[in-house]
Amino acid sequence: MAHVLKAFLEPKSIAIVGVSKTPNRPGHLILRNLREFGFAGDIYPVNPEGGKILGYKAYKSIKDLPENIDLAVSMVPADDTLELLNDCADKGIKNVLLVSGGFSESGEIGAKRQMAVVDLAKQKGIRIMGPNAVGPVNTSDSLVLHFYPMDYLKEGGVAFIAQSGQFCCPVMEHVMSSMHLGVSKSIDLGNCCDIDEAEAMEYLEEDPETRVIAMYMESIGTGKRFLEAAKRVTKKKPLVVFKTGRTEDGLKTAASHTGAIAVDDTIFDVALRQAGIIRAFDLDEFLDLTKIFDSTHIPKGNRIAVITYSGGIGSMVADACGDFDIKLAEFSKDTIEKIKPFLLPSTKTSNPLDCFAVGVPLDINDVYRVSLAAFMGDPNVDIVLLCLMVNRWVWSVDLNRVLSDLKQCQNKPVAAWVIGEDTLVREQTGTLEENGIPVFASPERAIRALGALWRYHSRIFES
Amino acid sequence: MAHVLKAFLEPKSIAIVGVSKTPNRPGHLILRNLREFGFAGDIYPVNPEGGKILGYKAYKSIKDLPENIDLAVSMVPADDTLELLNDCADKGIKNVLLVSGGFSESGEIGAKRQMAVVDLAKQKGIRIMGPNAVGPVNTSDSLVLHFYPMDYLKEGGVAFIAQSGQFCCPVMEHVMSSMHLGVSKSIDLGNCCDIDEAEAMEYLEEDPETRVIAMYMESIGTGKRFLEAAKRVTKKKPLVVFKTGRTEDGLKTAASHTGAIAVDDTIFDVALRQAGIIRAFDLDEFLDLTKIFDSTHIPKGNRIAVITYSGGIGSMVADACGDFDIKLAEFSKDTIEKIKPFLLPSTKTSNPLDCFAVGVPLDINDVYRVSLAAFMGDPNVDIVLLCLMVNRWVWSVDLNRVLSDLKQCQNKPVAAWVIGEDTLVREQTGTLEENGIPVFASPERAIRALGALWRYHSRIFES
Repeated sequence: MAHVLKAFLEPKSIAIVGVSKTPNRPGHLILRNLREFGFAGDIYPVNPEGGKILGYKAYKSIKDLPENIDLAVSMVPADDTLELLNDCADKGIKNVLLVSGGFSESGEIGAKRQMAVVDLAKQKGIRIMGPNAVGPVNTSDSLVLHFYPMDYLKEGGVAFIAQSGQFCCPVMEHVMSSMHLGVSKSIDLGNCCDIDEAEAMEYLEEDPETRVIAMYMESIGTGKRFLEAAKRVTKKKPLVVFKTGRTEDGLKTAASHTGAIAVDDTIFDVALRQAGIIRAFDLDEFLDLTKIFDSTHIPKGNRIAVITYSGGIGSMVADACGDFDIKLAEFSKDTIEKIKPFLLPSTKTSNPLDCFAVGVPLDINDVYRVSLAAFMGDPNVDIVLLCLMVNRWVWSVDLNRVLSDLKQCQNKPVAAWVIGEDTLVREQTGTLEENGIPVFASPERAIRALGALWRYHSRIFES
Repeated sequence: MAHVLKAFLEPKSIAIVGVSKTPNRPGHLILRNLREFGFAGDIYPVNPEGGKILGYKAYKSIKDLPENIDLAVSMVPADDTLELLNDCADKGIKNVLLVSGGFSESGEIGAKRQMAVVDLAKQKGIRIMGPNAVGPVNTSDSLVLHFYPMDYLKEGGVAFIAQSGQFCCPVMEHVMSSMHLGVSKSIDLGNCCDIDEAEAMEYLEEDPETRVIAMYMESIGTGKRFLEAAKRVTKKKPLVVFKTGRTEDGLKTAASHTGAIAVDDTIFDVALRQAGIIRAFDLDEFLDLTKIFDSTHIPKGNRIAVITYSGGIGSMVADACGDFDIKLAEFSKDTIEKIKPFLLPSTKTSNPLDCFAVGVPLDINDVYRVSLAAFMGDPNVDIVLLCLMVNRWVWSVDLNRVLSDLKQCQNKPVAAWVIGEDTLVREQTGTLEENGIPVFASPERAIRALGALWRYHSRIFES
């Protein structure tokens, strides 16, 4: 049997109930997103007035729809949901996305409303995503099934599961536009009244486009099921979890958002680790870890070689290594021989390697290039971090030269940090990431991400 | 008597010894920087061949220079430094910046060389900045006295003191171009053989252009003097310190960079706190704290009002409040009355306030505007955090409207976070910062910075 999430992520036909003719209303924008991104399946808007909306024929009621529709999307007020479910059942629609709010997130009346929805859906054999959910995205099908006005899609290996629409809307736009990451799927579970994280994970486990699953949670509904699924999934794909509600204030706020229930954070933390989950504690870390796990090179150990342009950076990096379980590599003799000709006689081949401590007639880019190639071939080095500076005059990184020896030997994770004038930094960041080298906003954050990458894979190697 | 740093930061005449005619050599670039940025003082290059360099008359030796030169800059090899000091002494030059490396940072021979320099300088009554220092910047005098090829200067309230040139070069370019901060002075102390952090701080204490002092350290030379000076300075101006060498690896690396000596980090931490210093533990935090302390509004308490567009953001923010000593404010009745008309009947006026939970016919910008104005006037609110999303269609923040009621009542710190498509985020960030609202890369980082702002000022209020 096909996984239930297939109907939500890969539908061939979608009915949208409560489509609005007024531009900028959510019930209008959801149709606009489907059209603008070029979704190829069948789309059936439902609006009591009928007519045409954005070029699509509008049906006056669910009853009038054709048979065999994979998925219904509800944009109707919360109070009309039971009627909608009954109509869907009559029409044989077995999968319903509830976008509207007004359920457990909005107090007691809403919670009762949600319980009634769950009961009826069970009785009718209908599976529900939401309520209070922005709906899924599937980039390979050009499916943007939510009302958030997305600018563009970028296909790639990152899948989001979230209990908050914003991770599938503005944060996802940030991830695609500013972080240069591509997205495979995004699934906002909203109040999570039926389809839950475990099922979403199971679906993504088998999704060939998904390399890393990034999950934002405010609560775990069925903890045991979730952890069992995670234990299996994390053996195949990394799962990064960012859970809020750690502090008293945070929990109170989460409760009013999705009705989250208190879980002792220490217990939660241990459970996550046992299930092989990588945990993030803030937004920066969540997105950094997602980025490093979307890259494809696997470290065989935690010995890092760091190429920098400054002794000061070296100290920062070394502190971060101490913090995040990464060791500064001891270079092989062969590596030292390769680098020596590029250093001043007074300079040692230290790690971090300060490329600026070279004889000035030499170009710093040659030192970067030769040392990078040497580290990639050094059996004592598992990971490489490039710390680069850019400016418009001299000593600026020239990536064409720095990376020219790299392609034959890219068998290790390489991460980078670039600093200097903003426009140049952005240019070089783009080039590095096109070459499969993820760039981080600081050397410490690069090391933190590399540490997590190493811990995940060392666990996989052990088991 | 004028402070010794005046000769280094506000010289009227500078001799540069070891100027090179070869473009892209440090000894050439330092002259180029002085010319390109339009330094108005007298410049005397010294080069044994004489002639003209970049339009300036070159003197064949220090002996040939005119009298009463404020500052000599040495670009000569380390071994020639003693001779240079003797010549300077003969010429009555009392202040020397030693740019060249080859001293205590480069092993035993270098350390001995440095001791000889210190001895001779003391004997001759010469004050030394460096060695192994890139040299100072004073934006109000258009003085860029270092060889790093800077793109541009931006005047402002941030002063850097660093034991690593990179904080005065590529990191400073990042601060000016990407973070939109202006710089007053930067002082790289290099190996810190004579002029030290305490003297640099004292100078900046009296500098009217400096609002916040941001200091990068790998070691403290004279701990007691430093802490005593800091205790006094921090009563006038915030002092943010980022010290590396926290971990074993970090210390080892710092030692090889500037010859740093081990200090127990816990003891160091307590000492900093007692001196009223704000400590940063990584580059992100260092720059975030510098940014918040460069802003001019002082919190009267730690009660924050948070305006967001998403319940999920609310939980993240609330967790960060728990982590960083900030409390979610309880709004006054007056505030609740003002906001109520903009919310759906089912929505509570909660903090964080989810502006998206409004009746959809209303524009989210009105909710932002009215709630921002209400919080600015609420006696129960000390700080405001704006969490904004941008896109090209609808519900995007329109700052002209959001900030339109703000100007009359900006008596409290307001910080912001903007998320969405990269180009739009950058535009809105620029506008917010032009309006005196510092923008941070995540809501948690905004809260962390605001927490530090509050702790600094609460300490000032108490004492």
